[in-house]
Amino acid sequence: MIKLRYGMVGGDLESFIGGVHRTAISIDPGVELTCGCFSRNEDKNCACGEAYGVVSDRLYTDWREMLRVESARGEDRIDFVTICTPNHLHYEVCKAFLEAGINVVCEKPLCFEIAEAEELRDLAEAKGLVFGVTYTYAGYNLVKVMREMVQRGDLGEIVAIHGRYAQGWLLDELQHSEGANDKVWRTDPARSGIANAIGDIGTHLEYIIRYITGLNIKRLCATVDRYGKRLDYNDSILVEYDNGVHGCYWVSQVAAGQLNGLKFGIYGTEGALEWEHHYPEFATFTKRGQAPQTISRGSAYLNAEASSNIRIPAGHPEGFYCAFANIYRNITRTIAKKKAGEVPNANDLDFPNAVDGVEGVKFVHAVISSGDNGSRWVEV
Amino acid sequence: MIKLRYGMVGGDLESFIGGVHRTAISIDPGVELTCGCFSRNEDKNCACGEAYGVVSDRLYTDWREMLRVESARGEDRIDFVTICTPNHLHYEVCKAFLEAGINVVCEKPLCFEIAEAEELRDLAEAKGLVFGVTYTYAGYNLVKVMREMVQRGDLGEIVAIHGRYAQGWLLDELQHSEGANDKVWRTDPARSGIANAIGDIGTHLEYIIRYITGLNIKRLCATVDRYGKRLDYNDSILVEYDNGVHGCYWVSQVAAGQLNGLKFGIYGTEGALEWEHHYPEFATFTKRGQAPQTISRGSAYLNAEASSNIRIPAGHPEGFYCAFANIYRNITRTIAKKKAGEVPNANDLDFPNAVDGVEGVKFVHAVISSGDNGSRWVEV
Amino acid sequence: MIKLRYGMVGGDLESFIGGVHRTAISIDPGVELTCGCFSRNEDKNCACGEAYGVVSDRLYTDWREMLRVESARGEDRIDFVTICTPNHLHYEVCKAFLEAGINVVCEKPLCFEIAEAEELRDLAEAKGLVFGVTYTYAGYNLVKVMREMVQRGDLGEIVAIHGRYAQGWLLDELQHSEGANDKVWRTDPARSGIANAIGDIGTHLEYIIRYITGLNIKRLCATVDRYGKRLDYNDSILVEYDNGVHGCYWVSQVAAGQLNGLKFGIYGTEGALEWEHHYPEFATFTKRGQAPQTISRGSAYLNAEASSNIRIPAGHPEGFYCAFANIYRNITRTIAKKKAGEVPNANDLDFPNAVDGVEGVKFVHAVISSGDNGSRWVEV
Amino acid sequence: MIKLRYGMVGGDLESFIGGVHRTAISIDPGVELTCGCFSRNEDKNCACGEAYGVVSDRLYTDWREMLRVESARGEDRIDFVTICTPNHLHYEVCKAFLEAGINVVCEKPLCFEIAEAEELRDLAEAKGLVFGVTYTYAGYNLVKVMREMVQRGDLGEIVAIHGRYAQGWLLDELQHSEGANDKVWRTDPARSGIANAIGDIGTHLEYIIRYITGLNIKRLCATVDRYGKRLDYNDSILVEYDNGVHGCYWVSQVAAGQLNGLKFGIYGTEGALEWEHHYPEFATFTKRGQAPQTISRGSAYLNAEASSNIRIPAGHPEGFYCAFANIYRNITRTIAKKKAGEVPNANDLDFPNAVDGVEGVKFVHAVISSGDNGSRWVEV
Repeated sequence: MIKLRYGMVGGDLESFIGGVHRTAISIDPGVELTCGCFSRNEDKNCACGEAYGVVSDRLYTDWREMLRVESARGEDRIDFVTICTPNHLHYEVCKAFLEAGINVVCEKPLCFEIAEAEELRDLAEAKGLVFGVTYTYAGYNLVKVMREMVQRGDLGEIVAIHGRYAQGWLLDELQHSEGANDKVWRTDPARSGIANAIGDIGTHLEYIIRYITGLNIKRLCATVDRYGKRLDYNDSILVEYDNGVHGCYWVSQVAAGQLNGLKFGIYGTEGALEWEHHYPEFATFTKRGQAPQTISRGSAYLNAEASSNIRIPAGHPEGFYCAFANIYRNITRTIAKKKAGEVPNANDLDFPNAVDGVEGVKFVHAVISSGDNGSRWVEV
Repeated sequence: MIKLRYGMVGGDLESFIGGVHRTAISIDPGVELTCGCFSRNEDKNCACGEAYGVVSDRLYTDWREMLRVESARGEDRIDFVTICTPNHLHYEVCKAFLEAGINVVCEKPLCFEIAEAEELRDLAEAKGLVFGVTYTYAGYNLVKVMREMVQRGDLGEIVAIHGRYAQGWLLDELQHSEGANDKVWRTDPARSGIANAIGDIGTHLEYIIRYITGLNIKRLCATVDRYGKRLDYNDSILVEYDNGVHGCYWVSQVAAGQLNGLKFGIYGTEGALEWEHHYPEFATFTKRGQAPQTISRGSAYLNAEASSNIRIPAGHPEGFYCAFANIYRNITRTIAKKKAGEVPNANDLDFPNAVDGVEGVKFVHAVISSGDNGSRWVEV
Repeated sequence: MIKLRYGMVGGDLESFIGGVHRTAISIDPGVELTCGCFSRNEDKNCACGEAYGVVSDRLYTDWREMLRVESARGEDRIDFVTICTPNHLHYEVCKAFLEAGINVVCEKPLCFEIAEAEELRDLAEAKGLVFGVTYTYAGYNLVKVMREMVQRGDLGEIVAIHGRYAQGWLLDELQHSEGANDKVWRTDPARSGIANAIGDIGTHLEYIIRYITGLNIKRLCATVDRYGKRLDYNDSILVEYDNGVHGCYWVSQVAAGQLNGLKFGIYGTEGALEWEHHYPEFATFTKRGQAPQTISRGSAYLNAEASSNIRIPAGHPEGFYCAFANIYRNITRTIAKKKAGEVPNANDLDFPNAVDGVEGVKFVHAVISSGDNGSRWVEV
Repeated sequence: MIKLRYGMVGGDLESFIGGVHRTAISIDPGVELTCGCFSRNEDKNCACGEAYGVVSDRLYTDWREMLRVESARGEDRIDFVTICTPNHLHYEVCKAFLEAGINVVCEKPLCFEIAEAEELRDLAEAKGLVFGVTYTYAGYNLVKVMREMVQRGDLGEIVAIHGRYAQGWLLDELQHSEGANDKVWRTDPARSGIANAIGDIGTHLEYIIRYITGLNIKRLCATVDRYGKRLDYNDSILVEYDNGVHGCYWVSQVAAGQLNGLKFGIYGTEGALEWEHHYPEFATFTKRGQAPQTISRGSAYLNAEASSNIRIPAGHPEGFYCAFANIYRNITRTIAKKKAGEVPNANDLDFPNAVDGVEGVKFVHAVISSGDNGSRWVEV
């Protein structure tokens, strides 16, 4: 197997998501962290590099410097870069690495403007580069199984969709005067863009439903609640998919007691699937007229190709790292095959990409636009 | 204690809801079924009367005849009538009994037209009569406790509401050509009115949220799905309450695996309450920054007046009949006190009444109107 | 339909279980409370009689007086008596009514001594009288369905059983010196007999497993924890059924947070059934090698005769009163048929009777005997 | 930070647990797999080595050869060996590596005989070597939190314990004639020892309760069910701890629908804790007289030192790999500190060790001995 090397922009030891990327990549052997600009702060940058065994002359406090120096290496150069900065830097960093011919993995939401997202998408395509966007939840094995079930017709035709992503961690912010808590960059428009909740977690909901069902949102109507703050904390959205079916999404970061409450139901003429992120190993599958079944990841009765592709047997919770690792495994397989001159297959290519990143940015803009215009219907 | 007598229109032995009314009333002693027009079919009418011990000369196959004869009795006349007919008869029957000076209990939705509902409300008020509308779910003890908690400020100010009422029993109907299954009167506009799902179950959701929070819906925006049928089977609704807070409701009768999935969350600045009808003895109460608590009906730690008012100790599921019985207990206490010349107190008057019936009809009209006009926002 | 009349010994307005019996009986029409000795205290007795419409000359403060007077009535005499006194009176009262030729319904545990229980059983049989013992939980519709499933072989051969009945309400008693809380008659040997927890709730577990599986306990081995009190508060029991299969029961009244935590699993070569009393409308049914199914009461897919015999449709929680009412319905149908000279069928006779009462008393004695003899194995 | 190197005996690519060890170790940076005897089969051995980047001259098909060659390396030699063979090889391999002065991590149950286990424990102590035994479940963060809660007195004095570990995967074996399925080495006495279920999963239950509560089992009484097979498939056990409190354990591999159903409740005078492995991020904590709380890993309200020591924020399921990684992190920190001449602290030493391995073997012997002697009580 070909070994791969990667570098990282952002994601020092204080960052939640930076560590998640590194751990997720390490779960499968064969991919090595070789350079990084984890922080512009030299001490933080060094601390992170040392902890992960990056040699000191491949640590940079300026990502442009890293790009310049690392691009100049020949065979030894990195196979991809992972970008974990706050949202406002995504566009610029992605673009620069793509232009240098380096594959990119970027956090979501991909960037601020639809035009920028489309530019990144087109650039990656023009350059023939891999561009992954880490919509983690699509990495859960059971999510892949549900997608397979929907697509082979286990639900018949879809008639209704219901989803929510509820958290409570910003409830405390409602007590503070705006801007008092600068640590929470997500609520700062300069770093987060036009949206908070809908960008941070709403896009996950948009993506996972699209991933499983293949349905795109044609138009939507949203209420956007800011409670006197600059960005949205709570959004309710009616959506109409391109096949005319309707759905209903709720996204909140002020729901006391909710941790990462991503939850949805997909209802069809022949059955339904329901899933909740807090118990990711299980889903409820109900065939019309029959008793609901609690299906579990990794079970033989699923007859699912996706299900055979598991890490640990049913009953051993795989968790968030495994979901993330599944995204990376497919990204790195695709990169490795392209590097080896092979053609990636459909399973390799099963990861969220720049096209999905564009859809996410469009969704964010549509929701905010609806909310800012009297909650009227907006085409996506 | 004063004994009460009641009569019944509709609700023969084949009716689900007729039996529920009779059983619920029997759970508390002191109220006797003395006459009835359970069915226009003489055999069915007699069978029901006999099963419940109604003497044969007080059984009628014409409700007008029953009204005429029973009204003529003096002291022996019924104290109230319970109306369990299909929706299209509610208005006419209610009006006639009210005009005769008899207290009325009617199923919901109250009637077809807003003007009719208001007429009934005004008539009851003008006559000084009791008018109960059986929104059952508000009878669950824990629902009353949650109302008390919200109203004493346990949640702080409400910031978001999320609710759904999902069933799956009409999914089979999607397989049939329209009108093929005449037994399902709810899907027949002639008997059900302009709405199916939103009238049958959506009104329960509208009422229970209003009952607990005291919030009225100011305007709403809905998608109404008929799937080629005449009436709605699936509705998604954004609502704006009179205090500007937003909520999101989903109402469906085509969700495979859902039985009576009434479920909601009420989120405030200081905490949240979540409840699901399938497990009515329990609710989740989360104070901001603390662990979610599974509160159970009848527990001393609730410090709730409503909680002390229980039938069986915590841990013994009270169920649907008890919820229904709680509605009737308050209605009959109010009737008994008025009969005895006493003034009913706030606890006695804690039952859904004609005003609530009017709100329900308005809600149904607003949802259907929105759906029929491009899902635009509609004032309620 | 024949109307029945009944009287009651014990169960005044302060008694939890007295009200439950009266309510449960009232859920089906046709059975009337006509006399009672609800309390030896005249005020309490009258208050109860008045609330339930018993005429004052049929209220007694001495149950012997009630037996004497009521027995002397001819056609007007009661068809059965319901006995809700504390345990120590069961034997005496049951015996007297049986001897007078009156059918009896008695609370469990039936009485203190095995010989007494057998005497009551034999007396009822000799007199040809109906003797019901109110093991309520067997009245839940889904319990009957599970019994039918086990008996038609859905589980194959049973290989293991696991059960528990856990409550927490006596935990506070551990803080008090023994006997300080006289209100809790269950912890007083004079009124409760040799056992507290195992008699009060352990017998329910013993019965429900036997009811569903048909398996009798051959021998058992128990640890009995009294924590310095006179009676047991916590018991753990290994059981061996007559077919050699083993089970494991835990019974506790000192488990913080447990309300009426009756819960069990029955495991066979072809599948398993699991049920928890807090959610009595649902059970988990797993066929070998397939996904667990959440079956719900009243569903067509159950193909169960017991399931068709429901009161309200699936999704409307029936609850404790309905379970109790199901017991009474069968008892009263049996009494009514015998009165009419008809032969009760198997469905009518589906209620816990004196034979079950005897088994319960034997179980209590075996557990306490094991615990008092170094937790050795004891034949039941 | 000091880098560590390790080797592996057993655990090729077909082994479930081998991959788990490697992945768990990789989750924290700084520990490298440098040699291995993954299989005696050369092809399998090479395949595994290649996948994990072990250079070919450090791959061995004979573990003695690996020990001989690797021991001879000076500074470059491995810091510890991980042993993932079937049970029957544990003793021999552990002993040889310990004698060579190499730290050992071994799967459980540690070995067949109590004397052997004690010999390993004493040998490790005499040599001053680290000896970890991978009782994984103790690695879950919330398990550590519960231990802290119990030990700081949140539950008061413990009064009862209830536990079970139920699986269903061996149910199919009951259909086969004994020995027909040789792939299942756990049911073969030659490779598994005197016990199957109680060794494989029962020891996890024994350990986790001891870990959390600090209570040791003084004596026990067990039913051991073999269903005509050579080893146990289902065991029920009454236990008495050294403080006189009783517990009740059920261990089964024939319970249809159960995956890795490790579940327990610990009940004290002031509160209770309940946990289920399928939902490892949550536990139920009930204070006496209050509502049960659903506590979640990583929450500020826990005020737990263990809780601060988390990998990803609450709401992101950490799962089985993280539990395993927590065990390894402490083992490797201890090894690294000792290597650096530092003294490991209590947190470093928080991992299951040889003493725990001995207790596990004693527990297995006591259960089987009880079962084979008429289920009498046996001192542990």
